[in-house]
Amino acid sequence: MKNGEEVSIQLPEIKMTTESGPLVSQRPTAVANRKTDVMHTVIRFLCLLTSVTALSVMTTAKEASTISLYGFSLPLSSKWSFADSFEYLVGVTAAVAVHSLLQLLINVSRLSRKSPSIPSRNHAWLIFAGDQIFAYAVMSAGSAASGVTNLNRTGIRHSSLPNFCKPLHVFCDRVAVSIAFTFFTCFLLAISVLLDVLWLSKY
Amino acid sequence: MKNGEEVSIQLPEIKMTTESGPLVSQRPTAVANRKTDVMHTVIRFLCLLTSVTALSVMTTAKEASTISLYGFSLPLSSKWSFADSFEYLVGVTAAVAVHSLLQLLINVSRLSRKSPSIPSRNHAWLIFAGDQIFAYAVMSAGSAASGVTNLNRTGIRHSSLPNFCKPLHVFCDRVAVSIAFTFFTCFLLAISVLLDVLWLSKY
Repeated sequence: MKNGEEVSIQLPEIKMTTESGPLVSQRPTAVANRKTDVMHTVIRFLCLLTSVTALSVMTTAKEASTISLYGFSLPLSSKWSFADSFEYLVGVTAAVAVHSLLQLLINVSRLSRKSPSIPSRNHAWLIFAGDQIFAYAVMSAGSAASGVTNLNRTGIRHSSLPNFCKPLHVFCDRVAVSIAFTFFTCFLLAISVLLDVLWLSKY
Repeated sequence: MKNGEEVSIQLPEIKMTTESGPLVSQRPTAVANRKTDVMHTVIRFLCLLTSVTALSVMTTAKEASTISLYGFSLPLSSKWSFADSFEYLVGVTAAVAVHSLLQLLINVSRLSRKSPSIPSRNHAWLIFAGDQIFAYAVMSAGSAASGVTNLNRTGIRHSSLPNFCKPLHVFCDRVAVSIAFTFFTCFLLAISVLLDVLWLSKY
């Protein structure tokens, strides 16, 4: 790992030294490094946005209505905290938002000091582990929530129950939007994992 | 990549050549390689076992019962193919079983020919991608199914519906066992991904 090379891109008097063997071969790597760092930062930012969106859309989902079943009128109220899966989704997206914000701050401060965003192998392994665990958690939360929503939408097929999303369509739409953003967060984290592995495989 | 080194561990006359510089430093790597290959093969085998178990337990889950709701007796029958999440779980575990079987056969044939189980970088990337995608898919399937089962077990909280798992406890238990094996498959695939990344970071 040679950390100081980015300087040689901007200062022409240091460029002179790049005529020697090892530095010439390292220069494209430094540029590629910077590109990867910027890409990583952009992904962190997007990930923060999508997880916060998923979180806020889910926590504001709430609706009350009535449903008639076999001639009875049942009161029906929906709130995100009534289903375990939705609570799990809120917890996981909140954790991912905090993780993304932390990594974003670290990346931006490192980029502004023109040092590489991943300083060492151990740090790279740590980020890989974090991203991988959060990617699995987000995938799990999105799937659990969409399993429940799908059940709400189609009615429960093994008994003759009605479709809950007809009287509660605003609630169901909000939940669907939140789940879509959760899956997009998972996709971004998977790309982040890929970038970590690329870093690990290069250095 | 030097492929022929494993021979030097078993034949003493070739051991003589390991006195030269590069080969001495490569020898522990060859032993470590072999260990990693054997570990990878064991994980593939376990993964095949758990995915086939999850698949067979789920596809044999079926029960019929009745439930009384507001004085009415409702017929209730449960089968894995009635819920989308359970169908998804069956599809994913079947795909993982096929993937594990293929990789196991490739690994075993390569190990028996004493060649390394991962012949090239491109192959390693391919295995990493496959393992990662299947790990996400299995995590998603397990979570979706457990979201639905959890709903079955606790009843649906936003209306006053009964607990479906009381009359259908055999079905619910089978589904729970299948989901447990699905999560264990996910754990094994995650270890497999870690081994792939370790390989990529080393060579």
